[in-house]
Amino acid sequence: MTVAALPPARDLSHHLNEIAKNRFPSPLKDIFNYMGRPGMISMAGGLPHPSLFPFNELALQVYPPSTDLSEGVPPLGEQMSLTIPKYPSAKTDTSLTSILQYGNCSGNPALRAFLHQFTLDLYQPAYSDFQILLHEGNTSGWTKVVRLLLEPNEYILCEEFTFPSSMSVWVPMGCKAVPIKMDGEGMRADHLEEVLASWETTHPGTRRPHIMYIVPVGQNPSGSTMPAERRKEIYDLCVKYDIIICEDDPYTTLQYPPFEITDTPAPVAPKSGADFAASLVPSFLKFDYEGRVIRLESFSKTIAPGNRLGYFVANPLFTERLLRATEVESQTPSGWSQGIILQLLTTWGQAGYLTWLSRLRDTYQTRRDTMCANLAKVFKALPAASYASAVPGAEGIALYPSSTDSASIKPDQLPVASFTAPVGGMFLWIKFYLKGAPRYRELVAQGVEDPEKSFMDEFWTALADNLVLLTPGSYYTPWEGAHKLSTSARGAERDVGYMRFAFSYNSSDEMEEGIRRVEQVVKKLWAY
Amino acid sequence: MTVAALPPARDLSHHLNEIAKNRFPSPLKDIFNYMGRPGMISMAGGLPHPSLFPFNELALQVYPPSTDLSEGVPPLGEQMSLTIPKYPSAKTDTSLTSILQYGNCSGNPALRAFLHQFTLDLYQPAYSDFQILLHEGNTSGWTKVVRLLLEPNEYILCEEFTFPSSMSVWVPMGCKAVPIKMDGEGMRADHLEEVLASWETTHPGTRRPHIMYIVPVGQNPSGSTMPAERRKEIYDLCVKYDIIICEDDPYTTLQYPPFEITDTPAPVAPKSGADFAASLVPSFLKFDYEGRVIRLESFSKTIAPGNRLGYFVANPLFTERLLRATEVESQTPSGWSQGIILQLLTTWGQAGYLTWLSRLRDTYQTRRDTMCANLAKVFKALPAASYASAVPGAEGIALYPSSTDSASIKPDQLPVASFTAPVGGMFLWIKFYLKGAPRYRELVAQGVEDPEKSFMDEFWTALADNLVLLTPGSYYTPWEGAHKLSTSARGAERDVGYMRFAFSYNSSDEMEEGIRRVEQVVKKLWAY
Repeated sequence: MTVAALPPARDLSHHLNEIAKNRFPSPLKDIFNYMGRPGMISMAGGLPHPSLFPFNELALQVYPPSTDLSEGVPPLGEQMSLTIPKYPSAKTDTSLTSILQYGNCSGNPALRAFLHQFTLDLYQPAYSDFQILLHEGNTSGWTKVVRLLLEPNEYILCEEFTFPSSMSVWVPMGCKAVPIKMDGEGMRADHLEEVLASWETTHPGTRRPHIMYIVPVGQNPSGSTMPAERRKEIYDLCVKYDIIICEDDPYTTLQYPPFEITDTPAPVAPKSGADFAASLVPSFLKFDYEGRVIRLESFSKTIAPGNRLGYFVANPLFTERLLRATEVESQTPSGWSQGIILQLLTTWGQAGYLTWLSRLRDTYQTRRDTMCANLAKVFKALPAASYASAVPGAEGIALYPSSTDSASIKPDQLPVASFTAPVGGMFLWIKFYLKGAPRYRELVAQGVEDPEKSFMDEFWTALADNLVLLTPGSYYTPWEGAHKLSTSARGAERDVGYMRFAFSYNSSDEMEEGIRRVEQVVKKLWAY
Repeated sequence: MTVAALPPARDLSHHLNEIAKNRFPSPLKDIFNYMGRPGMISMAGGLPHPSLFPFNELALQVYPPSTDLSEGVPPLGEQMSLTIPKYPSAKTDTSLTSILQYGNCSGNPALRAFLHQFTLDLYQPAYSDFQILLHEGNTSGWTKVVRLLLEPNEYILCEEFTFPSSMSVWVPMGCKAVPIKMDGEGMRADHLEEVLASWETTHPGTRRPHIMYIVPVGQNPSGSTMPAERRKEIYDLCVKYDIIICEDDPYTTLQYPPFEITDTPAPVAPKSGADFAASLVPSFLKFDYEGRVIRLESFSKTIAPGNRLGYFVANPLFTERLLRATEVESQTPSGWSQGIILQLLTTWGQAGYLTWLSRLRDTYQTRRDTMCANLAKVFKALPAASYASAVPGAEGIALYPSSTDSASIKPDQLPVASFTAPVGGMFLWIKFYLKGAPRYRELVAQGVEDPEKSFMDEFWTALADNLVLLTPGSYYTPWEGAHKLSTSARGAERDVGYMRFAFSYNSSDEMEEGIRRVEQVVKKLWAY
């Protein structure tokens, strides 16, 4: 693909905050400019001598990209061997002396080149001069974005339920969330427009939000994935209202087909790397003709979290300012991580990497299917649409007590819970209907301030005491300020509560046993 | 050593800035508290399954700690082999599945325990409840300290010449340096007291500085190392004026005996690890009975910079707030770095690590001696004290043109340059006397605003054009605001300029050739 015909990013420098504007280039820049001259003797840098690094050769057994991941560790004879020698050799430039030395704060050039090509081929940004800058994982990357763009006490756009760590950086700055309502396709464009169009009347005298934080695939916690049409609508609104989109996309290659409760989980049919790539919903980059998307991508979910390695895709102005911050905040990700990931990706090649991602997707799809099937085994799972008058607007699957005779359910009979099987990521987001629980009704009758939160806290503790841990839905409530803590003060849906179930880690037997323990507590609290 | 008799840190919470105070613990804390219960099934965390990490076994050849580093890579048969298996085994808890998974943001517990013991044995803090928290190298560590303690527009205490990257984080915040004069033993206690005692009159209406940034061993750029008595004086002043000391100490184990120009560089006699440890000047921690020192230690100079790994030693209140920031800023250093350093240190053991540090010190001492000897080979090097009327107060070594007949030097004859051979670190800080250069006198006569800076810039460019790179002294000028840019506006010493020479990297032949190229330019500019 050629990018020559695409426009460059537009000038978005008015989004930079004061501190980001004030950063100055490292004074060592002049030195770097001279460094490459033939015959130069540099006594400028304080580089330790690489002969004094106490390491001589690294060897690592790695899986071939087409490994059948359902089988566990591949047999030794089938593994590939990576080595990183102490010094560069005819075979490879990558050496311990280079990856363990002080270096370019942008990150390893060969790794960035691989990722630039990968971005071009897979995500096809709609502008020409996007750049790659390495970071230390998406949590760290998002923190750098906040410090690039957000001023203290500003508002920030996010989804109705949002990743709690993403808030930890801006809440202490006095900033507040503007949560945008979601449906099964993620953030709703109509609600976004409503909020932005009425900003001056709803929030007189305050700056309209100019940054959006969004997890568009396998959203954490809701599991929703945003299709192309919705992305286009959201992007166009961001152009209209001049908003920078931060696309936090760690689950981007974990996309699945829909799951119906009537399905019998079947073995997943493996796709080729190319078919896999073609099956993914496009990134926001695909619509980004102005360069207003900062994409955060990570190896945490696709290789391993301990790499603490990921990358920004952004316009050159933003990557230059992010690099200035990186020079003082982290300098560069670990040389071990950069060297090992570079060797892994170049050994696999882009085609191999896509095959790996495709096989990984397959195994997580099986895990999603297994979690859904286990819920259907323990509860009575029925298509929610059949009970529309009990669960207005419900999509997906309703869970009733297992003893329920489905033929006898009255159209207005509340289920215990409902969920939409996610088409991406690692999480099921289960909504509980609290009116069926006597203790909840008691809390309401007592007039406690936030009966939903009080009940869900008791529910969570009862689950933990019954040896099953879930993540409470309340963790994902965007921070709108101390005056909007309760469910009613936030104007959120009443008489419901959420729990997040992760399907990434447990075996099928553990999932089943865990869900049985959930059901034991539900049975008691819902008194059936 | 027992710490039971030592006092705990005093409450220093009034030093935290607003953002640090406002940070809240991760909501996931409740989940962690339940996590360890026997029989618990957790579907809470979004952990990728470790069988899906594509790595199977890491093997690394490492040097034995007593390696003769002057010999280059030790023969293969003498090397030690580290392995990290995929899964924990009877032999080791350290496994790829643990180091590459999401984990405790404080860092690997076994590594922290090793470093806690090392700190206790080597530095002997004067309070009992100090803690270890991993960070991503001292540059990143210092940035976290700034974000912990400093408010925008405050003043900060530092040395007369300071590490430029340390300023890059606070200059954009509108902060300003309060440089404290130095002598051969580092920051001067008398000038510190003078500045602090007169603060209210010199800076009415502004908060007195409450943070000191200091590099007390092998100071960058001056190379000075602060002896115990001076540290005690500085510490006592910091108690009196309630100042937090940030001890940035990457060169702490690179300490050398004095070097006289009359010395013939001799092979260094290796010390035992214990004798080596006993030979080091004490850390500020040794005097720190209140817990007001934040020590930054790094593996960049002692193992390799690419590890991007180091650690804070600080009081529990500060480490708790730093941990809250770490959770959103970096989560944790790379698992590869943590795992490899842990395996290296536990394979070597504390005694082996001290032996390694001692051998490393030896090799850098040889490099320092070689650099000094090469300067004496190219220039005429004479004890500065003999030319006291030409170089008032000069310590160390004066450099005259090589053609100079030392017997004929008049007592008031300015040398070209002078320096004190450093007793720590990686740098020589050479002071040039500019009055001997016709071009400098011309700039003065023309009345340019900052003739010292203008001349030194021309000097640096002439050096670079003659294929030798040094670091200009101007990089190390503390930022005091836009109104204090010129030498005269800062009240700095007139008619002198500095260059920093690193002796860490080049071979003796390269050093000699580099210094000859310097001398060619000096000869031309000083017109001799």
